[in-house]
Amino acid sequence: MKLMTGREYVLSLKEYNPDIQVKGKKVRSVADEPLFKPGINAIAVTYELAHQKKYQDIMLATLEDGTKVNRLNALDFSTDDLLKKLDMVRLICKWTGCGQRYLMHDALGALAEITAMIDADKKTDYFSVFKDYLLHVQKHDLTCGTAVTDAKGDRSKRPHEQADPNLYVRVVEKNQKGIIVRGAKANITGAPYVHEFIVLPTRSMQKEDVDYAVSFAVPVDAPGLKIIAKPAGRPEDAEAPFSSNFGQSTALVIFNDVFIPWDRVFLCGEWEYTGKLAEAFANHHRHSCIGARAGLGDMIIGASALMAEYNGLSYTDVPHIRRNLGELIRMIEGFYATGVAASVYGRKTVAGNVVPDSVQSNIGKLMLAEQVYDIFRIAHEISGGIVATAPTPEDIAIPEAGELIDQYLVGKHGITAEERIKMARFIEDLTASKEGGFYALISLHGGGSPEAMRMSAVRNYDIESKKEHILQKLACFAKLEGTCKECETCVNDELCEQECK
Amino acid sequence: MKLMTGREYVLSLKEYNPDIQVKGKKVRSVADEPLFKPGINAIAVTYELAHQKKYQDIMLATLEDGTKVNRLNALDFSTDDLLKKLDMVRLICKWTGCGQRYLMHDALGALAEITAMIDADKKTDYFSVFKDYLLHVQKHDLTCGTAVTDAKGDRSKRPHEQADPNLYVRVVEKNQKGIIVRGAKANITGAPYVHEFIVLPTRSMQKEDVDYAVSFAVPVDAPGLKIIAKPAGRPEDAEAPFSSNFGQSTALVIFNDVFIPWDRVFLCGEWEYTGKLAEAFANHHRHSCIGARAGLGDMIIGASALMAEYNGLSYTDVPHIRRNLGELIRMIEGFYATGVAASVYGRKTVAGNVVPDSVQSNIGKLMLAEQVYDIFRIAHEISGGIVATAPTPEDIAIPEAGELIDQYLVGKHGITAEERIKMARFIEDLTASKEGGFYALISLHGGGSPEAMRMSAVRNYDIESKKEHILQKLACFAKLEGTCKECETCVNDELCEQECK
Amino acid sequence: MKLMTGREYVLSLKEYNPDIQVKGKKVRSVADEPLFKPGINAIAVTYELAHQKKYQDIMLATLEDGTKVNRLNALDFSTDDLLKKLDMVRLICKWTGCGQRYLMHDALGALAEITAMIDADKKTDYFSVFKDYLLHVQKHDLTCGTAVTDAKGDRSKRPHEQADPNLYVRVVEKNQKGIIVRGAKANITGAPYVHEFIVLPTRSMQKEDVDYAVSFAVPVDAPGLKIIAKPAGRPEDAEAPFSSNFGQSTALVIFNDVFIPWDRVFLCGEWEYTGKLAEAFANHHRHSCIGARAGLGDMIIGASALMAEYNGLSYTDVPHIRRNLGELIRMIEGFYATGVAASVYGRKTVAGNVVPDSVQSNIGKLMLAEQVYDIFRIAHEISGGIVATAPTPEDIAIPEAGELIDQYLVGKHGITAEERIKMARFIEDLTASKEGGFYALISLHGGGSPEAMRMSAVRNYDIESKKEHILQKLACFAKLEGTCKECETCVNDELCEQECK
Amino acid sequence: MKLMTGREYVLSLKEYNPDIQVKGKKVRSVADEPLFKPGINAIAVTYELAHQKKYQDIMLATLEDGTKVNRLNALDFSTDDLLKKLDMVRLICKWTGCGQRYLMHDALGALAEITAMIDADKKTDYFSVFKDYLLHVQKHDLTCGTAVTDAKGDRSKRPHEQADPNLYVRVVEKNQKGIIVRGAKANITGAPYVHEFIVLPTRSMQKEDVDYAVSFAVPVDAPGLKIIAKPAGRPEDAEAPFSSNFGQSTALVIFNDVFIPWDRVFLCGEWEYTGKLAEAFANHHRHSCIGARAGLGDMIIGASALMAEYNGLSYTDVPHIRRNLGELIRMIEGFYATGVAASVYGRKTVAGNVVPDSVQSNIGKLMLAEQVYDIFRIAHEISGGIVATAPTPEDIAIPEAGELIDQYLVGKHGITAEERIKMARFIEDLTASKEGGFYALISLHGGGSPEAMRMSAVRNYDIESKKEHILQKLACFAKLEGTCKECETCVNDELCEQECK
Repeated sequence: MKLMTGREYVLSLKEYNPDIQVKGKKVRSVADEPLFKPGINAIAVTYELAHQKKYQDIMLATLEDGTKVNRLNALDFSTDDLLKKLDMVRLICKWTGCGQRYLMHDALGALAEITAMIDADKKTDYFSVFKDYLLHVQKHDLTCGTAVTDAKGDRSKRPHEQADPNLYVRVVEKNQKGIIVRGAKANITGAPYVHEFIVLPTRSMQKEDVDYAVSFAVPVDAPGLKIIAKPAGRPEDAEAPFSSNFGQSTALVIFNDVFIPWDRVFLCGEWEYTGKLAEAFANHHRHSCIGARAGLGDMIIGASALMAEYNGLSYTDVPHIRRNLGELIRMIEGFYATGVAASVYGRKTVAGNVVPDSVQSNIGKLMLAEQVYDIFRIAHEISGGIVATAPTPEDIAIPEAGELIDQYLVGKHGITAEERIKMARFIEDLTASKEGGFYALISLHGGGSPEAMRMSAVRNYDIESKKEHILQKLACFAKLEGTCKECETCVNDELCEQECK
Repeated sequence: MKLMTGREYVLSLKEYNPDIQVKGKKVRSVADEPLFKPGINAIAVTYELAHQKKYQDIMLATLEDGTKVNRLNALDFSTDDLLKKLDMVRLICKWTGCGQRYLMHDALGALAEITAMIDADKKTDYFSVFKDYLLHVQKHDLTCGTAVTDAKGDRSKRPHEQADPNLYVRVVEKNQKGIIVRGAKANITGAPYVHEFIVLPTRSMQKEDVDYAVSFAVPVDAPGLKIIAKPAGRPEDAEAPFSSNFGQSTALVIFNDVFIPWDRVFLCGEWEYTGKLAEAFANHHRHSCIGARAGLGDMIIGASALMAEYNGLSYTDVPHIRRNLGELIRMIEGFYATGVAASVYGRKTVAGNVVPDSVQSNIGKLMLAEQVYDIFRIAHEISGGIVATAPTPEDIAIPEAGELIDQYLVGKHGITAEERIKMARFIEDLTASKEGGFYALISLHGGGSPEAMRMSAVRNYDIESKKEHILQKLACFAKLEGTCKECETCVNDELCEQECK
Repeated sequence: MKLMTGREYVLSLKEYNPDIQVKGKKVRSVADEPLFKPGINAIAVTYELAHQKKYQDIMLATLEDGTKVNRLNALDFSTDDLLKKLDMVRLICKWTGCGQRYLMHDALGALAEITAMIDADKKTDYFSVFKDYLLHVQKHDLTCGTAVTDAKGDRSKRPHEQADPNLYVRVVEKNQKGIIVRGAKANITGAPYVHEFIVLPTRSMQKEDVDYAVSFAVPVDAPGLKIIAKPAGRPEDAEAPFSSNFGQSTALVIFNDVFIPWDRVFLCGEWEYTGKLAEAFANHHRHSCIGARAGLGDMIIGASALMAEYNGLSYTDVPHIRRNLGELIRMIEGFYATGVAASVYGRKTVAGNVVPDSVQSNIGKLMLAEQVYDIFRIAHEISGGIVATAPTPEDIAIPEAGELIDQYLVGKHGITAEERIKMARFIEDLTASKEGGFYALISLHGGGSPEAMRMSAVRNYDIESKKEHILQKLACFAKLEGTCKECETCVNDELCEQECK
Repeated sequence: MKLMTGREYVLSLKEYNPDIQVKGKKVRSVADEPLFKPGINAIAVTYELAHQKKYQDIMLATLEDGTKVNRLNALDFSTDDLLKKLDMVRLICKWTGCGQRYLMHDALGALAEITAMIDADKKTDYFSVFKDYLLHVQKHDLTCGTAVTDAKGDRSKRPHEQADPNLYVRVVEKNQKGIIVRGAKANITGAPYVHEFIVLPTRSMQKEDVDYAVSFAVPVDAPGLKIIAKPAGRPEDAEAPFSSNFGQSTALVIFNDVFIPWDRVFLCGEWEYTGKLAEAFANHHRHSCIGARAGLGDMIIGASALMAEYNGLSYTDVPHIRRNLGELIRMIEGFYATGVAASVYGRKTVAGNVVPDSVQSNIGKLMLAEQVYDIFRIAHEISGGIVATAPTPEDIAIPEAGELIDQYLVGKHGITAEERIKMARFIEDLTASKEGGFYALISLHGGGSPEAMRMSAVRNYDIESKKEHILQKLACFAKLEGTCKECETCVNDELCEQECK
């Protein structure tokens, strides 16, 4: 098993030759493309942190044979694993804003469960295909993109009902060696700078959608695979102290009749399991999102507290600053707690791994999705208007103007105008820029829309037992009135004896 | 060690002879007082459930010597204990609305820590006094009331600044045998039907407040102790299906020069520890409140779902009912998750027991405090106006009127008007009656006001490390610009090497 | 035209002989029934205030011939009328919690419009029937109950689909003299102590529901009409300082084949207008609800501010009390503003009267419906736990206990324990009792459920013109790129000239 | 009186020669500077709309002598004026995002009142100076920037306490001809492309701050005045369909010993009026902000509704889209209503003009400040993730990629991928870009921080009369118990007579 360094990861990208376009230009070397640099940096951090002693307990997982792999490439087998994964994602995202690579962790967890389930039901052999693939990923310490969201076309129609049959990825040919797939996956995180893709169905399919029931893995440079990517973060923007260093590319990934050998196919035609696979992935991934956004939250808390101090308003002295900081803490630790609870109440699967509790994962993801906007608002209230109005770096660079800015934008004694402006620009970058908008939108729609979460949470919740409890209670109260049904679930027969005589 | 049944608990109250007044009358036998019946029932359930096989894992704790005691009377020694305590409180409150007796659990946990801490610092012997008392409580399977909130007088003044020196409980005499205390504790839960009281300081005291720094235990019928109580729930009210069965009394408990022997004194004069004791209790108790209100929430979810169905509107078919039910789930499981997280991140004390994480306990209590009102609102939206307008039982009892009501208040086919009305009245009782108002207010102010929680959460949160992280990050970004400080905490020297050359 | 005094109104009830049952007993004289006293007091206030000089500008309306009538019995003809009506309702409810009688005002406004509309379309003569009835109401200064909500049965089915055809009020016979109606109206406000009822359809009917399309007026004691009422407020409850004086009865009103002469029939069979009539009433009534709850809010602001002061915490000194008081103001004046805007943008009807703007009425009612729970929460946070735990009047009456209570429940210097307790009980009564629950529920469901408001607001909103504006804008931006469509709505041809050259 | 066209306004800028720097470069001709184009366009629209017949009723005000001027340059004299001003600002901002020029309207309204007030108290002659200036502004149809916010330095200190005395603008010399001022105003809206500045104090000053008590007008190119500006919007950004056309510059405006002749000085040394002037401006301006953000809201409603349709999800069919659209309407029309109410309850000043009600202005501004984040969130939920992930224009321009994008990003039948992407980009521009962040922050902090609004609303609210009402009520209830104080404000003596006998 290998544990690449950040630099080794960057260099490893040179071994692939994908068909990528960004901002209208063809990319020759991903590793050297400035527009992807912030995204590559972020992934590199996931490799680097695994080499830091103080973080190895959470960054590394131990396989059965005792070897260590990056936890991002491992399955979870216990509550403790889930808690460490949550903590790992928070750490990574506290460094990078969004570490992106955890998507593969979530896909692997889901595939383990569902391939084992299909095998058990249908005597297929997907689980061993999956296990081989997992070994391959661990051996080479790979980063895989996870491609779930289809093009979708008209959102009110199912896959087979679309005007163009290719609006969801589908199998156009099957043969002895493998399958040929056509279609596109949209909004794919980190697509240009991964080694491979894991492809999952985006929703529950029905019988008529059988050709769309497909899951597989494929290298980023497979023939016929084309990537139209957006820049990662705000590269080379002097007003972007954070997102010129760390960011995230998303891409449209087109499968123009791509061949997938059978030893990379995890599901093909078993439409009854597509919904389960999509939901299993969602449970893992929404759990990760909770950790991810808590990491972003850590940065926002730290930066807001500093900004207020730089303005002369410490949270220890000023009641409304303290209350606002408390609100940030309440929201961020509040949704983080759902990730902890999802870990504690995780469910063992037929494959032996564990999946976070679906109700807690869903409500946690929903909480963060909606609250990220409140978090930005409160960070802005704490920080003040300078977040949007700090002078540009170019103006500061002109000596005469720079001096005036130094004089007039000073805040608390001992803090220079330059420090204040840098902090303001850092907060603007995270919360009030294109990057901030991006964070808001991926918090809201990444891993499923809020409505999907609302429906999942209700569907997976045990409402029936609560209804049962009320009916029993009403019967019980009737008993106290002398009409006891002596139901066997009674908890208070002692009381009752006393009452009913 | 004893495990009383519910009935044994009720009978045990006859061995005490407290001075109690309720609704203007002197109570002769607490066990037979109808106005306390709902409260006594609730406590009885905490004894009964401990005898139910299926609940013993969560209802019982095992002492070092292997004997079992009611978990309510035991200390917590691990995350698992905290999780079970949380679950236990939820179970009890799902049955009773509020099981009340968990307050003693929380007081014991706090006293263990702080008595051990004082002994360590001051060579006192409070911890062994405490341990003897704990044994006494466990041996007799007692229920103790917990008396924290003082009369307080003018809330803008400290104890020693009050016009009347007795507005906080204080030591008026110390002698070889013990101490004599004077003052009153207000809003004391379950006061009339407990065996003993554990008395704690309500806030942090300063040097001038030294006489008010006192903590002790005392039997409910100690000479000089007087209780002015309110009825528990809504006893004997035909429109109160729930709170005529289960409720909670609160009382003003007056200490009219009550003698406390030294073997029941846990703190006396060590004012520097009063804040710590109050906060330790708060951490335990806010954690319990989270479980308690989740139990209430379980009832509200079950009853609301049934009420909507009885109206003909199932959550599976009607989008706005489903969305509202989802909101209930989100809020209730959302704050419950903070209790889980507080358990997972509990802190070991010098006494060897564990205390729930204070940030999570505080934000969870704050969440439930504010959200209980939203929970009522949504339950009402789901249930409809009938909750407030269902005909009275007396009208239904008149045959002619009863028939008309049967005809016209019918809902979904197969559900009688009587069933609909009973469910409506059950929901009104929990959420829109004096009992509902009581639940709202104890959720809001019980265990401390929302403002106390807001301040505690900020005070206990590690804001400094997050500020540090941002400052390090800004320095690191400077490095990427070629001005690396080579700080030892660097996580990306590989990246840096690449960058900085 | 008559302007009764409060006492004359009370005495006038003796001239009617309705069939009323309350709490299982037949009512002989409504005017003397203690269980209705708080409701009768509230209606009496609507008469009394009209005699107070300082309020006559808002309490009285001037008819065309110059005579004055109670504004509650008059149509609105201008924005100024709507603003005064809003103000009047606020005043009445600030005195009474809920003045109830404004429902008739809203019904009259809706009937004016829709009867005129039907006449215009169908050459019927309903409008003159209505005008005669209006004159009758004004001449005798009557109070009419407004009966809208049907029994409804299974809420997922339409009237004609119900198992029992009588679950919505319907016409069972038509003859030369009039019609005979059967069915029941539920949750009818103030039913026992009105002079007459105005009956309106509760929803939009379809062709198959033609028999259910009916609207009429009928005296409270018409043969066949039976009322099963709930007590008004909390009569004779010593812990209810407010609601033992002012409250509201709701009732089930059964029409057991009641004859209605044609000169009291406002709609019969014209099912296409039922939706319009229901909506017109809703617009008027939701507007009134805004004023009503603002009046309740006035009491809550005043009492909360006093309670905090009595505790020693003035809003001028304590930041979190001030912030909370600010929240109360924001919410109450915030929804009140929608009532003002609905008045300003009122629409003239074919009958010549004005109806408040439907979008503003609906969002205002929705705001108050949801915020009433927040208002209670904040009032509780400001006021403290004493709201739920104040000793009972019976305990205070016992001298020994009374003295202890006097000593220990004192707050700010100069305020006695008695004053503190009275204020606490007043707030409990309004916000944390059965009355408080009732206020919450009628705010939420009275005048239609929140979902009804949400749908109405969207349906009545001009979304199309905003879509149009965006499409035009995008085209316009295209123009700036040189592809101007020269659309005639262009606002920037000057700019364009400059741009496009 | 002149009414310039948009083009005339642009050309008029060439008559000024201000010292301006943007992005590190000195600006030679403001009118030709591409980085200011979007801001200039926005101001130009305020001139253009005044020439459109259909808008003249709201865009023009009529002076006493019957001449017409742009309403932005006129005082308000009635509720009708305030309503039209509100409507005008909404219209302008619906076209431009933020029309900026309304700040001058608000400054003029405040100066009218306070100059007249000072004259009345102190026999000064500021009001006639002001009136002459107003005439000057109207005659030349000027746009004035409004400079309020000082540099401020340490926010916990008052002006005279700052380390550097220039951190608030101050008078450094007074002589017969005029005064000389030094300091800087920060975050000044539209600074580079206005004709003149109106300068107001940013806060209430105390006696020690007397040198900082100053208000005046000054041309943009006065000697010693230097402007360091940010670009307006996102000029020349191909991904910014809106903000490359319309935007807003903010600037640091430095007064390096600028001479102001007495006929442009509105206040100098009368520190007791600074708070009143700041608050008067705030009342006018917060009222304008309400209209402004409603205009932004109009765009967001239109664009969101279209985006959902383009995705195949119409609000008429999909419940959660409808509910979300309803939420947008509720919030936007909800805060707009406060602007209407502030107009209706406007207060006449000593100068004869009217000022919007301060409570309503403040709560409305507070509502929009906090809700703008919710509005963005809901717009995003309605619109979907494409808002953040739409391909770049450069990619679309490459034929092969463009075709794939055309194929795969298509939505509802009949809508091309291009149309979908343009709409997504439009929404991103308004809500999830640097421009979106800017809108959020100026909504939150523009016109004062949320905390300023919270404090103003409470300070200006009549809490006392509400406390009085409750005390009277409690006394009145005592009367019903037979202890009537016969207070003269009694409203129910009839009732009482009946009761008390």
